[in-house]
Amino acid sequence: MPSLIWKWFIEHTHPTQAHMFGVERYIYNGQTPFQSVEIVDTDFFGRCLIVDGKIQSAQLDEYIYHEALIHPAMVMHPVPRKVMVIGGGEGAVLREILKHPSVERLLMVDIDSEVVELCKQYLPEWSRGAFDNPKVETCYMDARKYLEQNEDKWDIIFIDLTEPLDDSPSYLLFTKEFYQLVTQRIKNGGSIALQAGNLNPRLFECHGAIYNTLKLVFKNVDSYGAFIPSYDSRWGFIHASQESSAPKFTPLMIDECLKERNINDLRFYDGLTHLHIFTLTKDMRELRSSEKRIIEDNNPLFTY
Amino acid sequence: MPSLIWKWFIEHTHPTQAHMFGVERYIYNGQTPFQSVEIVDTDFFGRCLIVDGKIQSAQLDEYIYHEALIHPAMVMHPVPRKVMVIGGGEGAVLREILKHPSVERLLMVDIDSEVVELCKQYLPEWSRGAFDNPKVETCYMDARKYLEQNEDKWDIIFIDLTEPLDDSPSYLLFTKEFYQLVTQRIKNGGSIALQAGNLNPRLFECHGAIYNTLKLVFKNVDSYGAFIPSYDSRWGFIHASQESSAPKFTPLMIDECLKERNINDLRFYDGLTHLHIFTLTKDMRELRSSEKRIIEDNNPLFTY
Amino acid sequence: MPSLIWKWFIEHTHPTQAHMFGVERYIYNGQTPFQSVEIVDTDFFGRCLIVDGKIQSAQLDEYIYHEALIHPAMVMHPVPRKVMVIGGGEGAVLREILKHPSVERLLMVDIDSEVVELCKQYLPEWSRGAFDNPKVETCYMDARKYLEQNEDKWDIIFIDLTEPLDDSPSYLLFTKEFYQLVTQRIKNGGSIALQAGNLNPRLFECHGAIYNTLKLVFKNVDSYGAFIPSYDSRWGFIHASQESSAPKFTPLMIDECLKERNINDLRFYDGLTHLHIFTLTKDMRELRSSEKRIIEDNNPLFTY
Amino acid sequence: MPSLIWKWFIEHTHPTQAHMFGVERYIYNGQTPFQSVEIVDTDFFGRCLIVDGKIQSAQLDEYIYHEALIHPAMVMHPVPRKVMVIGGGEGAVLREILKHPSVERLLMVDIDSEVVELCKQYLPEWSRGAFDNPKVETCYMDARKYLEQNEDKWDIIFIDLTEPLDDSPSYLLFTKEFYQLVTQRIKNGGSIALQAGNLNPRLFECHGAIYNTLKLVFKNVDSYGAFIPSYDSRWGFIHASQESSAPKFTPLMIDECLKERNINDLRFYDGLTHLHIFTLTKDMRELRSSEKRIIEDNNPLFTY
Repeated sequence: MPSLIWKWFIEHTHPTQAHMFGVERYIYNGQTPFQSVEIVDTDFFGRCLIVDGKIQSAQLDEYIYHEALIHPAMVMHPVPRKVMVIGGGEGAVLREILKHPSVERLLMVDIDSEVVELCKQYLPEWSRGAFDNPKVETCYMDARKYLEQNEDKWDIIFIDLTEPLDDSPSYLLFTKEFYQLVTQRIKNGGSIALQAGNLNPRLFECHGAIYNTLKLVFKNVDSYGAFIPSYDSRWGFIHASQESSAPKFTPLMIDECLKERNINDLRFYDGLTHLHIFTLTKDMRELRSSEKRIIEDNNPLFTY
Repeated sequence: MPSLIWKWFIEHTHPTQAHMFGVERYIYNGQTPFQSVEIVDTDFFGRCLIVDGKIQSAQLDEYIYHEALIHPAMVMHPVPRKVMVIGGGEGAVLREILKHPSVERLLMVDIDSEVVELCKQYLPEWSRGAFDNPKVETCYMDARKYLEQNEDKWDIIFIDLTEPLDDSPSYLLFTKEFYQLVTQRIKNGGSIALQAGNLNPRLFECHGAIYNTLKLVFKNVDSYGAFIPSYDSRWGFIHASQESSAPKFTPLMIDECLKERNINDLRFYDGLTHLHIFTLTKDMRELRSSEKRIIEDNNPLFTY
Repeated sequence: MPSLIWKWFIEHTHPTQAHMFGVERYIYNGQTPFQSVEIVDTDFFGRCLIVDGKIQSAQLDEYIYHEALIHPAMVMHPVPRKVMVIGGGEGAVLREILKHPSVERLLMVDIDSEVVELCKQYLPEWSRGAFDNPKVETCYMDARKYLEQNEDKWDIIFIDLTEPLDDSPSYLLFTKEFYQLVTQRIKNGGSIALQAGNLNPRLFECHGAIYNTLKLVFKNVDSYGAFIPSYDSRWGFIHASQESSAPKFTPLMIDECLKERNINDLRFYDGLTHLHIFTLTKDMRELRSSEKRIIEDNNPLFTY
Repeated sequence: MPSLIWKWFIEHTHPTQAHMFGVERYIYNGQTPFQSVEIVDTDFFGRCLIVDGKIQSAQLDEYIYHEALIHPAMVMHPVPRKVMVIGGGEGAVLREILKHPSVERLLMVDIDSEVVELCKQYLPEWSRGAFDNPKVETCYMDARKYLEQNEDKWDIIFIDLTEPLDDSPSYLLFTKEFYQLVTQRIKNGGSIALQAGNLNPRLFECHGAIYNTLKLVFKNVDSYGAFIPSYDSRWGFIHASQESSAPKFTPLMIDECLKERNINDLRFYDGLTHLHIFTLTKDMRELRSSEKRIIEDNNPLFTY
């Protein structure tokens, strides 16, 4: 009975819109040097990771977010060997990347080692041992500094950051200058994929601006989106590369690639899902083409 | 500043999950013989129609819901002349149907004439004069009784009902017996389309059960879905027909049909959108195939 | 069942504390030149007047607020003939004052004629015809300006203002300079009474500061308080006069005075209630004596 | 800024009324064999103990509740030597009772030893070592059973129970039969004091019914009340005894008794506070006299 729910987590996506989650149990609450972190057991979504008051991932549907972020870029690359992840502290991106057998080296650069430790302890289902895989390295520092200091090149770089809130550490990882640095660290034939903001029509500016900014830096830039129930929205992602003529992947090609790589435990992603998520509705295409904003170091983007 | 919002509309989609809308103004509040009705101006979604405490349509995104419900079935029918709408009191379904020039007769059967009058008065943007179109007839009675008493046949029947809440008038319009009656009122080559529940993985039972039930009655049954921001979810629809061999519609065919019919003011629907909405993600396909429930008059479905 | 309540009025008394009222019906919503006004039917408190997002008075308990504000000063004055009210747009203070038969002239000065008209229309139970009483005059202007321009003197002046919010019209009616003007308009033996802030220990500053400020201007200043359920708190009032030796009123004296004046329809106030409300608990007395703030025109008070 | 508060504890005192507390940190959450227990740090009220979704006591104002419950009965007894407490797991009642130097034996009977252990660990400020005082005994069992099995007599018995919720353990400790048992365990000249429900006029039934029930069993029964901010209400207590002619205690007598007993650290209670809390307002007196309900084992009381 609703009257018996007395603990609520209320996430505002806008001053006049919020999502209420009935909480069964608050598991952890703390402040790292970079952000506030909470681990919560909700009734509807199961265990949730909340960073700076925003749900990052939820037990019920983290498979959607993480499969959507990882597998399109992995499948569209013929032999991804060296993969880098920026952010992604929960370890679920590592879990998904490691399903691709060609991966030889997988580096995660996250600024906040405490979040990673908390996720290992409280969200072991997210990483399912991935941090212990010998292919995986972790490096705790600012990713921009890392890329400036290390000239290694990667087949794919995944960028899995919290949204650029007012005083969050991530806002300089959403700018043209940062993407220019990233593209220098991509091998020929490589690509990047990133989470890229809400696709709600009234909150679209963030996605539109990231898309525009990436278009200045990469030859091929594709938006895609997946409905994430715990985000209360269809969420945007972007895949970008320097290929002059990217082949078009049909559902059948996707399914065959997954089969060849012996990946048979995905819950969200397959050939039809690929077709679905990469096909934007007309309103989204028009919103995207009407957005003119470019994100730069001296003109950064902040979301609510 | 959030502290200045003091009027909130809180819609529970589950006892432990709710969506909060900051309200600028409550416009209308009343009780018809069948349901409670409110018209509200929210900041985020603009004007909203709320029936029995649930948002039915919102100014910001009603185009998504109504284009998604109407155009696929209309476009896939070669020459829709006689069209029936069950429910749909806002008049926006009429507005969309009338964009197809072949329509000669358009009948709306809704149990609640008061809701229709309120929508004409307070939501004129929804119907945009459609009720005054000479092709349109309205009939205020129980749709099941109407179909029992009238043997007319239709090219397409749209079913646009509120969810079957505990004591809402609509629950007998979601059963196998009702769909058996509906199919007898469809012409050869005709079809039906309906709103068919939430696609949130934890609230999927309603969609799955409607799909199963329709499979018993129709030869071709296709789920599709569209993210409706004001519903906080990807929402389900179903298109069903008795065709033994339904042609597959490509985006190009859809776009050409719209062009031939001179329909150029759609915001959501076009060929690519058609492809997107009819392609379900893997998890949805699996949830759907695992649902075994059949809805019958003596085993009806109620949602929260 | 709680899940069926979907309209809530949420009043913040602090950024981290709020009171939720389930709303049956929003009756009126508008903006006067001075403030936002809403009339709402709540389930728990009945009809409520909300000004700038704060409940001013509620059907369930307005008798407590208005009897507490008016009768102590009226009863402690031997023959109140000329009475002035600053603010008090609902008309309930007029209703209570007129119960004292000695009243010959009763002037209400309120800045906002629209609020008064709305209260006459939507809250007729509050004034119960008082505005039509021939003893009553109304004057719509800034009360400070009125007192500067009119040298009439009064037996009692009641000050019934909304709290001094950031941009509300009332903040210059809470300062030392204003009270110095008020005391010049009081006859010998006269007094003032006013609403004077929350007595919640964490929100006490407002009451303490008004008390301190009045102590600089009046010889006798007495705090008193009454629990107002719709305010979620014990609420403060102050009675102040220039009498050098104020007699002490026993419950018996109060009851006899009410009897002599033939006032027998009070629900809250009588001799024992007088004793109760004028006796502060130890913590309130100590909070009050530790507050040192003085409110001045150039150092005004604003509450949350 | 309010938007940054994302954890809320929402306490319903009625299906259409609730109190929202912004939470800084959830400290503890568990289920004992008898009730759910949470320890929470709120911004406004500091640390709070929540049992079965209802705030039991809060750091900001527990002194009000506990001083109000304990000192009137203690002060009105000439030499309280043997004192029993039923419930009162936080230990704050022990702390207050022990301030009276005549106390020789102090027994606490609480059904839930786990709550007591949690309070010792997380709320040490509440008991301030009282559990370690050699005069104190604790006994973990049903208090009714204890009184049936033990014929010891006591100078004062305090009953500090959670409200009788639907399935809470306490509802058989609010009945006529229970009070009849209690009075047999009181020495000549002894008394009882108990928390006795909300004094909100719409939630008054609980207080009225307890008062009526006690009137059948005790000769002198006095209601009193104190505003407890974290309860959002003026809260009821009752003091009852079998004295045929109870002396009337003036504020001076109370203050002198506290001085004689060398009690000088109270924040809420003194002579004037005693006068204040034992003087009910007219509406409360009338509500109380109009309540006819008797609580019996086979007609128990449950609150929302």
